[in-house]
Amino acid sequence: MNSAVVLLTVFGLSLRLSLAVQVGLSHKVLVFPYETDFSFVALVPQKELELRAFTLCMRVATELPEERQIILFAYRTADYDELNVWREKDGRVSFYMRGDGVFFHLPPLTTFRTSLCLTWDSHTGLSAFWVEGKRSTYQVYKPGHTIRPKGSILLGQDPDKHLGDLEAIQSFVGEMTDLNMWDFVLSKSAIHAWNNGHQGPKGNIFDWATIEYELHGNVMVVEDD
Amino acid sequence: MNSAVVLLTVFGLSLRLSLAVQVGLSHKVLVFPYETDFSFVALVPQKELELRAFTLCMRVATELPEERQIILFAYRTADYDELNVWREKDGRVSFYMRGDGVFFHLPPLTTFRTSLCLTWDSHTGLSAFWVEGKRSTYQVYKPGHTIRPKGSILLGQDPDKHLGDLEAIQSFVGEMTDLNMWDFVLSKSAIHAWNNGHQGPKGNIFDWATIEYELHGNVMVVEDD
Amino acid sequence: MNSAVVLLTVFGLSLRLSLAVQVGLSHKVLVFPYETDFSFVALVPQKELELRAFTLCMRVATELPEERQIILFAYRTADYDELNVWREKDGRVSFYMRGDGVFFHLPPLTTFRTSLCLTWDSHTGLSAFWVEGKRSTYQVYKPGHTIRPKGSILLGQDPDKHLGDLEAIQSFVGEMTDLNMWDFVLSKSAIHAWNNGHQGPKGNIFDWATIEYELHGNVMVVEDD
Repeated sequence: MNSAVVLLTVFGLSLRLSLAVQVGLSHKVLVFPYETDFSFVALVPQKELELRAFTLCMRVATELPEERQIILFAYRTADYDELNVWREKDGRVSFYMRGDGVFFHLPPLTTFRTSLCLTWDSHTGLSAFWVEGKRSTYQVYKPGHTIRPKGSILLGQDPDKHLGDLEAIQSFVGEMTDLNMWDFVLSKSAIHAWNNGHQGPKGNIFDWATIEYELHGNVMVVEDD
Repeated sequence: MNSAVVLLTVFGLSLRLSLAVQVGLSHKVLVFPYETDFSFVALVPQKELELRAFTLCMRVATELPEERQIILFAYRTADYDELNVWREKDGRVSFYMRGDGVFFHLPPLTTFRTSLCLTWDSHTGLSAFWVEGKRSTYQVYKPGHTIRPKGSILLGQDPDKHLGDLEAIQSFVGEMTDLNMWDFVLSKSAIHAWNNGHQGPKGNIFDWATIEYELHGNVMVVEDD
Repeated sequence: MNSAVVLLTVFGLSLRLSLAVQVGLSHKVLVFPYETDFSFVALVPQKELELRAFTLCMRVATELPEERQIILFAYRTADYDELNVWREKDGRVSFYMRGDGVFFHLPPLTTFRTSLCLTWDSHTGLSAFWVEGKRSTYQVYKPGHTIRPKGSILLGQDPDKHLGDLEAIQSFVGEMTDLNMWDFVLSKSAIHAWNNGHQGPKGNIFDWATIEYELHGNVMVVEDD
């Protein structure tokens, strides 16, 4: 339960909430039904996010209008956004590691589920999104960079400059499922396997089937039908 | 023929029309060829619509322009719209149970047939549309609500505040077929079965093969080719 | 190494660069990560481009905005653009042989790889683009024309009126791979074979597996995953 203690440190507001780490979301979907500034899911990683490469995959669906900014994944240490993934106001999908981000033109997120992966490798800086198993054009982003460990990982909200300062207008509304993360770049065939729901390498940072998570505010866990 | 009497009570104007309840539309399509304020099909349910959950499915095609409001299904008791399904002016598809509705961004209805299901469960409030068997993002809508019985069910027109007050500008023009309704939420696989025309659980409120219906005004029953 | 000498003659600025001709890009992708006026790849053909017919194929992906002009292929002799392929500001794809060009409405180039071929035959003037193996409508363009030999072939930049004068605003940003060129019009089935990665006739002007090329500026050669 160390991770729960870390979270307490980072989000002052969490002190008022019951922190119950739950385990495993196999065949489950997270439903964020309303726009709020208090609903989120904190994730406890299997290992620290000291990363020089990663693959992050999730399935995501939203009814939010196209011009609305949406946080898709937020990993923050004390003073920095270490790894944030956004759907931007202009519809592009982006990610940021400590400072300026990189932007991709992908098919729009819709009310139907989109399978989305993101890969990045510090050695080359090559980064790409994968939509339904199809890779976007590579972009070179922050070669040589390292993601720092010992932060907090949230779904549904972006913890802003002031920790715990959450904004409804950036919140996620919709469904997320099948989030997995690896500390290396998956091969194309492994991403295809994940996309098709076949057995591939299990996420060694997050594995949806055994993921440790805490629900805060109004988030529903629904059987995936 | 109790249900026909109920209909007489609800729509004063029906007194002037011949009320002939017909049975069964297997392999048939309802064609609403023109915009009118007098053409509709009244449906007689197998059981009263006292509902805490439902699945409503139909196949629908229309040439109406995208910015035109269209009524897709109307169930009304004396003073309330109990369950209305609309294509809105902004293109979204919506449903309403007594008051404010809930809105979904779906692929547009077109001249080609769209398979459309709607599921709602009072226990959780989870509601979703299913397009060609693909589920939209869940929205939470009126958990705890109950749909009231003993109303009238129309295709093609929306009976407005003043009963029998129909508006051409909201009327349906196009084709409807294969409408089925259940008093529970169908499983994903059962919706897929319906979508693919395979045998699934028969609708226990409406079963297109044995549905009781009355044609009013200019509605054609056409063999489905 | 004659061709390298030719290149030296044509591009004065090349004198300052190390000219290392490399061979073969099998299972490799060229990544042009940034908008520059100095990054390009010079190609050395297997035979001179004295052409009365050709087929040019490549797979291309870009993140550049739709309204941005993009050079896709440039072959220039001393005073003329002999064969330039563009994505125009209005989104159309075009090619030019000495003077006015011809324009095609194709599906937009996106962040995902597009398989693109271009065929032209001097005898009839019939020209067409092939997208994922599907042929565009034929257009008749410069029947009787001959493409002249002894020019320079660039990917990534358009050498303008003033030789060596490159413009960032026309440069290519994104990925190119699997470029092949033949001095005749490939059959539909041969284009399908190329499109599907099957063995067809090897390019006799360019064959990606054995292509001779020189990297200039910031261009990456990446393993195709």
